[in-house]
Amino acid sequence: MTTANAIAPAAMDQDTGYSLERRFYCDEEYYARDMERVAGRKWIVAGHVDQVRQKGDYFLFRIGGESLIVVRSDESRINAFYNVCRHRGSLICTESSGRVHRLTCAYHAWSYGLDGALLAARLMPADFAKQDNGLHRAHVRVFHGFIFVNLSDGEPVDFQTTFGDLEPYLDFHGFANAKIAHRISYPTSANWKLVVENFVECYHCTPSHPEFSSMHPADALIAFGAGPSSGPKDAVQSYLPTLQAWERRAAALGRPIGTVDDGPDSSHLRLLLQRTIREGYESETEDGQPASSLMGKRLGFDQGRMYVSFSPFTHVVATNDFAVLFQFTPRGPMNTDVDLTWLVDGKAEGYDVPKMIWGWDRTTLQDKRITENNQAGILSKRYQPGRYSQHERRVATFQQWYLRELGAPQA
Amino acid sequence: MTTANAIAPAAMDQDTGYSLERRFYCDEEYYARDMERVAGRKWIVAGHVDQVRQKGDYFLFRIGGESLIVVRSDESRINAFYNVCRHRGSLICTESSGRVHRLTCAYHAWSYGLDGALLAARLMPADFAKQDNGLHRAHVRVFHGFIFVNLSDGEPVDFQTTFGDLEPYLDFHGFANAKIAHRISYPTSANWKLVVENFVECYHCTPSHPEFSSMHPADALIAFGAGPSSGPKDAVQSYLPTLQAWERRAAALGRPIGTVDDGPDSSHLRLLLQRTIREGYESETEDGQPASSLMGKRLGFDQGRMYVSFSPFTHVVATNDFAVLFQFTPRGPMNTDVDLTWLVDGKAEGYDVPKMIWGWDRTTLQDKRITENNQAGILSKRYQPGRYSQHERRVATFQQWYLRELGAPQA
Amino acid sequence: MTTANAIAPAAMDQDTGYSLERRFYCDEEYYARDMERVAGRKWIVAGHVDQVRQKGDYFLFRIGGESLIVVRSDESRINAFYNVCRHRGSLICTESSGRVHRLTCAYHAWSYGLDGALLAARLMPADFAKQDNGLHRAHVRVFHGFIFVNLSDGEPVDFQTTFGDLEPYLDFHGFANAKIAHRISYPTSANWKLVVENFVECYHCTPSHPEFSSMHPADALIAFGAGPSSGPKDAVQSYLPTLQAWERRAAALGRPIGTVDDGPDSSHLRLLLQRTIREGYESETEDGQPASSLMGKRLGFDQGRMYVSFSPFTHVVATNDFAVLFQFTPRGPMNTDVDLTWLVDGKAEGYDVPKMIWGWDRTTLQDKRITENNQAGILSKRYQPGRYSQHERRVATFQQWYLRELGAPQA
Repeated sequence: MTTANAIAPAAMDQDTGYSLERRFYCDEEYYARDMERVAGRKWIVAGHVDQVRQKGDYFLFRIGGESLIVVRSDESRINAFYNVCRHRGSLICTESSGRVHRLTCAYHAWSYGLDGALLAARLMPADFAKQDNGLHRAHVRVFHGFIFVNLSDGEPVDFQTTFGDLEPYLDFHGFANAKIAHRISYPTSANWKLVVENFVECYHCTPSHPEFSSMHPADALIAFGAGPSSGPKDAVQSYLPTLQAWERRAAALGRPIGTVDDGPDSSHLRLLLQRTIREGYESETEDGQPASSLMGKRLGFDQGRMYVSFSPFTHVVATNDFAVLFQFTPRGPMNTDVDLTWLVDGKAEGYDVPKMIWGWDRTTLQDKRITENNQAGILSKRYQPGRYSQHERRVATFQQWYLRELGAPQA
Repeated sequence: MTTANAIAPAAMDQDTGYSLERRFYCDEEYYARDMERVAGRKWIVAGHVDQVRQKGDYFLFRIGGESLIVVRSDESRINAFYNVCRHRGSLICTESSGRVHRLTCAYHAWSYGLDGALLAARLMPADFAKQDNGLHRAHVRVFHGFIFVNLSDGEPVDFQTTFGDLEPYLDFHGFANAKIAHRISYPTSANWKLVVENFVECYHCTPSHPEFSSMHPADALIAFGAGPSSGPKDAVQSYLPTLQAWERRAAALGRPIGTVDDGPDSSHLRLLLQRTIREGYESETEDGQPASSLMGKRLGFDQGRMYVSFSPFTHVVATNDFAVLFQFTPRGPMNTDVDLTWLVDGKAEGYDVPKMIWGWDRTTLQDKRITENNQAGILSKRYQPGRYSQHERRVATFQQWYLRELGAPQA
Repeated sequence: MTTANAIAPAAMDQDTGYSLERRFYCDEEYYARDMERVAGRKWIVAGHVDQVRQKGDYFLFRIGGESLIVVRSDESRINAFYNVCRHRGSLICTESSGRVHRLTCAYHAWSYGLDGALLAARLMPADFAKQDNGLHRAHVRVFHGFIFVNLSDGEPVDFQTTFGDLEPYLDFHGFANAKIAHRISYPTSANWKLVVENFVECYHCTPSHPEFSSMHPADALIAFGAGPSSGPKDAVQSYLPTLQAWERRAAALGRPIGTVDDGPDSSHLRLLLQRTIREGYESETEDGQPASSLMGKRLGFDQGRMYVSFSPFTHVVATNDFAVLFQFTPRGPMNTDVDLTWLVDGKAEGYDVPKMIWGWDRTTLQDKRITENNQAGILSKRYQPGRYSQHERRVATFQQWYLRELGAPQA
């Protein structure tokens, strides 16, 4: 972790590269490998604790060909089970969310506790061992309100070592007690890497996103539009004084100052960047006025915003009065679930949902169209990897990280 | 053929097993093998003679990637032809049923007789032999009103040897002269084996089928819910006195008593079981009252029902006043046609269709949902073969039969 | 080029053959080879200049998995570019037609001139060479109003050598100045070869096309229904006197007389045939009356029609007052775009569109149905190549041409 003014020199010295070859974006075989070696081994946010406040509350999280039941079994414990009955393999839950006493398969009524233990199975042979037939578990961690799951067969990378340094920032924003104001899904007909590549660069912001661009200083979008090492070196230099002045003001209002900028050798390619929004704006809304009350431990509006990536699959953007959780979930070689969840302070009341979603709803619809056109074009036999601009450094970093992960031995 | 009280000891001694591995339920390659080695070699009911009463009446029967034209050529003969013109391969019939004088291809007007002979083909070269260009035939047999087809290239297993012992039962029910009261299709997005496995066990009846369960004694469903060797041994023993008492009453009203319980080494895995329905009920309807007049040679209502499997692909359930033909036809790796035909006595008048279909229409819609959820769950990488209950003995038997057929050398 | 009465002896002596084996009509692999070795190397008509009259006018032409931008860059030049941005591969144009000043990618605003040169790309590294990043071109030629494209990587077969001898006929019809009266698309679920095979024989005209047959002499349809060498030898002999008499009359009205009948060794399997329409008819309409004014350099109605094939993918049928352009474009193993464009004289006014499209709209809808049924039947395992009639000589010739092309070494 370093402060913003020491961010990027190393990353900025690397050559910007070229987009990947076609097969990475279309082929069944490459997709299966992505699922096995990348998506299947990372800590990925499945949802927020506000979705499962009461015992027995559950929701389904679908990733690749899997359906997970994320269910609260008691006040302190949330579990993630594969939604597959141990009897003949039927889905157990078919509604996307609900509240249950037990997890009972609708086929033959095998019944599991909220802890996954098989409680009832009629007429089984005498040597059948119920204790060996509990639901299969996925790894799960709740961290500042976010429910992380991990599909690894073996022991995944240690959670606290991976994410512990983000605690002060997440704590300041009050995510653990946040509540969900709104959710929208934008299923996108494109490979998950095209969705990620779109999100980790702001080269397309000016041509494609008028609403988003209206809420930010143009020089900040160029310097740091998609994170600490996403922009050209000279743009960073010229924006730094403004940024440093804002950091001093924001620190005075209690905001912990700092940056995270994982490189391609990291396990989760995390990012954390805090910067100003448009001058005179208090929030990322159409008129700059807040849509809700201050989130977390803030003492006042500080005209800043935080962007944090837990991994290429999960991102959070937090303005002063609300935050948006972005989930990019591979579902097929050319299908990705894009789900946005707007969070507000746990004690917020009377917040304005249309005002709050104005920016990111429009921006995400634009990104869906852009990304689907990108996928369609790549299917041409004349597509060839193209050169990245100086504003797409983070795309190149993502690519290096991805290629390294893909080559990594199987866990 | 044995009487009910001697049914099952051999089958019941076998260990119940485990469901099949995932690939059997999803893979294209396994499906192609199923079609070639199992579905493609069995006598399968394509329909009932009531669909083709008049000369020239035809209907299409679709199985796998094939379309068969089942057509009556004269009073005593029904043919089954591949719906493929010998000229350039066009479908000949495109309507699902109709009446024709000739089978004329709509493309170039090649015209075939109802016996499949090529009658007219304009402007062919002088050495073209019409007699070598008749329609390709599938094997066909009409047996007590049911039209059986067999797609084998070579000579299939002898029909009379295979099904002859069922004659007395089918004759008693009058199927040869029955007429069709109603038909409904329930196309199901699941592998054909999941549809069959669902049908040959009653372990799921209580949790899933309230209407069905309301029409039957609970002890009968456990002992014999899916045929003679489908239930636990002790349940069979405790139900036998009731069954035997009914057999005596039913025999007095003319019903031939007996059971068929083919084992996994048989060619068609046939079943025949007769038993009581719910006390006080005369028919399998919501209030137990008949929906039509007595079928066949019955002398009176005997509170019984017959379940007969011609093979895993074709089943008939007959209550006193109507019968239901079940056709389970593979159409793709995860697609099965489920078609129900309600039959009534040939002389029945004023029968009540909504009353008649109440039970099986609801039950089949439930089975469609259940089976599709089963298929969806099996796609998970965490699915693993699960243990069968004592109430799923017949599923295990089906599996043994299927695996043996799959390994059999090509006909 | 020969006159009609010397047409076909060589072709007519060949044995008529058999339809192709199933795999040619369904398999992914065969389709990929067709695209690479056949469709990908031929001069194919993408459209007509009337679609791009003004500078900046463009339309998209989709073939196989490719999208081409056909755009006019100045009065004398039309270009065809692959619709793939050189940056990260996005589609550039997403509307099927329009008028633009530049070709600007909606993703990151890379901007290309109408000549394909990269004009603007922000923030690129210093060593990025714009001149190396123009749009990829397809070969393009405008010939008598028709815009031909060719997807060959290398130099395709010389255009003028291939098509030059057609000039007098095309010039007489005035195609260069024609205007589009109407366009209809008939996407067809069949392999492109089934669409072509349907179009190059008239054996099916009588059974399948009542409207088409009503506009033509029966003996002409048999002798020359699908081109010079499409009918039986004796039918040709008996029709020749009628044809020759008409040729004399038509020549007197300025029509250039002649025939083209490329054999299976040719590069494009071209055809050109001119003959009479139904006696008393002046045009191919329901009542034989014209639907527009005379096309091109005609001096009067001559009761004739011309059929010209530029290749199996592109055909034109011209009656005296309008012409129809047929585009058969492979889009998938069992999907073909069938697009019809009705052309009228450049100075025509007050033409009657419903009257003009009556014949070919109905006929093409019939062909779509026929061809889709042909595809469906071929999927049967019992399909086997069938013998061609004497009226399908041109289908056999197409097949020989196709098989030779398929075997040709890669360009």
